[in-house]
Amino acid sequence: MYTNHDLDELASFYKKQLTEDTVPFWFPRSYDKEFGGYLLMRDADGSLIDTDKAVWIQGRACWLLATLYNTVEPKKEWLEGAKLGYEFLRDKCFNSEGKMYFHVDQAGNPIRMRRYFFSETFAVIAFAAYAKASGDQDAAGLARELFGKCLAYASGEKKIAPKFEETRQTKGIGIPMIMMNTAQQLRETIGDPRCDDAILEWIKEIEQNFVKDDIRCVMEQVAFDGSIVDHIDGRTLNPGHAIEGAWFILHEAVYRNYDSNLIDLGCRMLDYMWERGWDKEHGGILYFRDVYNKPVQEYWQDMKFWWPQNETIIACLLAYLVTGKEQYAKMHSEIHKYAYSTFHDKQRGEWFGYLHRDGSIAQTAKGNLYKGPFHLPRQEWYCWSILQTHLKNLESVATCADKATV
Amino acid sequence: MYTNHDLDELASFYKKQLTEDTVPFWFPRSYDKEFGGYLLMRDADGSLIDTDKAVWIQGRACWLLATLYNTVEPKKEWLEGAKLGYEFLRDKCFNSEGKMYFHVDQAGNPIRMRRYFFSETFAVIAFAAYAKASGDQDAAGLARELFGKCLAYASGEKKIAPKFEETRQTKGIGIPMIMMNTAQQLRETIGDPRCDDAILEWIKEIEQNFVKDDIRCVMEQVAFDGSIVDHIDGRTLNPGHAIEGAWFILHEAVYRNYDSNLIDLGCRMLDYMWERGWDKEHGGILYFRDVYNKPVQEYWQDMKFWWPQNETIIACLLAYLVTGKEQYAKMHSEIHKYAYSTFHDKQRGEWFGYLHRDGSIAQTAKGNLYKGPFHLPRQEWYCWSILQTHLKNLESVATCADKATV
Repeated sequence: MYTNHDLDELASFYKKQLTEDTVPFWFPRSYDKEFGGYLLMRDADGSLIDTDKAVWIQGRACWLLATLYNTVEPKKEWLEGAKLGYEFLRDKCFNSEGKMYFHVDQAGNPIRMRRYFFSETFAVIAFAAYAKASGDQDAAGLARELFGKCLAYASGEKKIAPKFEETRQTKGIGIPMIMMNTAQQLRETIGDPRCDDAILEWIKEIEQNFVKDDIRCVMEQVAFDGSIVDHIDGRTLNPGHAIEGAWFILHEAVYRNYDSNLIDLGCRMLDYMWERGWDKEHGGILYFRDVYNKPVQEYWQDMKFWWPQNETIIACLLAYLVTGKEQYAKMHSEIHKYAYSTFHDKQRGEWFGYLHRDGSIAQTAKGNLYKGPFHLPRQEWYCWSILQTHLKNLESVATCADKATV
Repeated sequence: MYTNHDLDELASFYKKQLTEDTVPFWFPRSYDKEFGGYLLMRDADGSLIDTDKAVWIQGRACWLLATLYNTVEPKKEWLEGAKLGYEFLRDKCFNSEGKMYFHVDQAGNPIRMRRYFFSETFAVIAFAAYAKASGDQDAAGLARELFGKCLAYASGEKKIAPKFEETRQTKGIGIPMIMMNTAQQLRETIGDPRCDDAILEWIKEIEQNFVKDDIRCVMEQVAFDGSIVDHIDGRTLNPGHAIEGAWFILHEAVYRNYDSNLIDLGCRMLDYMWERGWDKEHGGILYFRDVYNKPVQEYWQDMKFWWPQNETIIACLLAYLVTGKEQYAKMHSEIHKYAYSTFHDKQRGEWFGYLHRDGSIAQTAKGNLYKGPFHLPRQEWYCWSILQTHLKNLESVATCADKATV
């Protein structure tokens, strides 16, 4: 179990890492004052390996800066930084039909469009957080409008070119998950009446179609009726991703006054996928697993990536704070120690992204088309936030108790 | 240097591995007598992990069986096996517009279409080899018709949906390489007057645009004018792939009476990419490298896959046989020993496909959507064939010398 002193130390650790190690690795040097947006593709020492801009990461970085401004400290530098990302996304990252690119060059010329709408979901949270930070009503309007488009994509009202033929169509847990988190962020920054009900629908979809209690598993893909697609791709599990979904649901449980059904669901998802994903030999969460322990198609399946560790650190800590169960403190302590001792670059700040299964470094990039200032700083920020709230609640309970005694 | 005795032993080794270890792992058990084609997605022990059929691999397996029949031994089982693949490809793997799928289910229902035309190139070599084996003129006609479509795709006359926007278009070495090998196979089975000139054009394209003598490198992608695209994807090298291209060119050199310019080009490509790809610490060819030694985007960049080793074994042996240079015997011996001691499953036959950089097994599948009976058996077959020819030539030279003496 963690004592309150332990929790207090953890809160300080995460805050210090966030503000003195992680964020300074990226900013201010990544602000692109010439073209707008951020220059985020960087090697371990911070040197730039590419001037291109991955649109997901531009949105996530803008969200981070605005969120730091909104919740940690109203630093002018962070607000100005968020504005660079907001304007670049708004002015350079949409095609003429209003669909967002995946990848643009430094000046914002388009390099690659992909069929998915994840550039859009990250732009929603960026615009909403920036609108809250700046008071800019246009940004708030754009966030709501873009969220409407995401709702239409997610419901199928707006079509995405299918990757597979009709013979065997599947659906992924990614869409209800990302939509849930997008809606949560929108609700908690500028508010939107569409969020509360929609979030419950996505949670229902996850619980009914992806969570398999009989085999203690959360599927990444299922058939439209929720059944397991027993082929190499359909069997592939992504434990870190499912665990990210678990904490989104626990977050919702807290918002809904510690809803016990949601707490139970989030904890089951965490339990199942910790069992599936935790590497008993070397520690850490493995990237992919097969539901029936067969070989996985994706080649990096047994590598350790940074982000599944970040999501699991959050999920274990949040599960501990909402349930008080010792097992979650133990899990949190294990993954926290594993991750900060293997991924963290103590000399130069931030984390390496890509380790071999045994924890040795596979490659040194800290930023590329898929990694940037998001999962790690979000973990440090979120863990610090929930610990702060928890300790304050304890304090106010203690104060009341004192008064009652008096 | 290899003595003739060494070369004789190598020829026997490859023939024995091919016919007593590799091919028996796959056949006859993979023949799908119910639906046609082959069931090739298998774990280390041969158990089936998926009944789906990857169209590339169906074509490659059909090519292998027909080639074994044509060149090793006219076994009825191999011809019947090739027919299963030929008919399945012909009847089940084309959509209504004549484009081939990438992935179908056991019965041949379509699962996934991809924009590339590599399913087509592998079907060309399968149909041509089967036509030679069976004497089936329809198969020969289909091979030539499909090769015509590939020519139209390769020249841009038939359009493929572009993956990238117009801002930064690139071209890959894959298309001239695969087209060269497809044409070589077509020419050497059923013949086609289009092949000889076209092959020289593709070689010119490779030499002028992809081979960079100033930095001793073969690029995988370049801009349309042949310049290096200095971004994370454009910088990515694929040494095993470039080395495969090297031996296609050396093969052409032999066909063209040991053309010295082609020998020089093939050897330069091999030299450059051995320098770039050979892992001095653990042995073997690494998957991806960055031209300027920066971090690579693809996650499995430092893994050891089976096929780059197969292609390098061929290239080194062929370079040795055509040049007689000791360095190539040494390189061949190194990679041969490395590969057969780390990848080969001595208990159950065939090779593992996916090792970590240090040579430990990352996952056990011997067949999946990308691996099947192709690179390994082709290497064993091709090395045996060129050694046989080499030894026979020596013998006939010796016989002539004897006669001259007499």
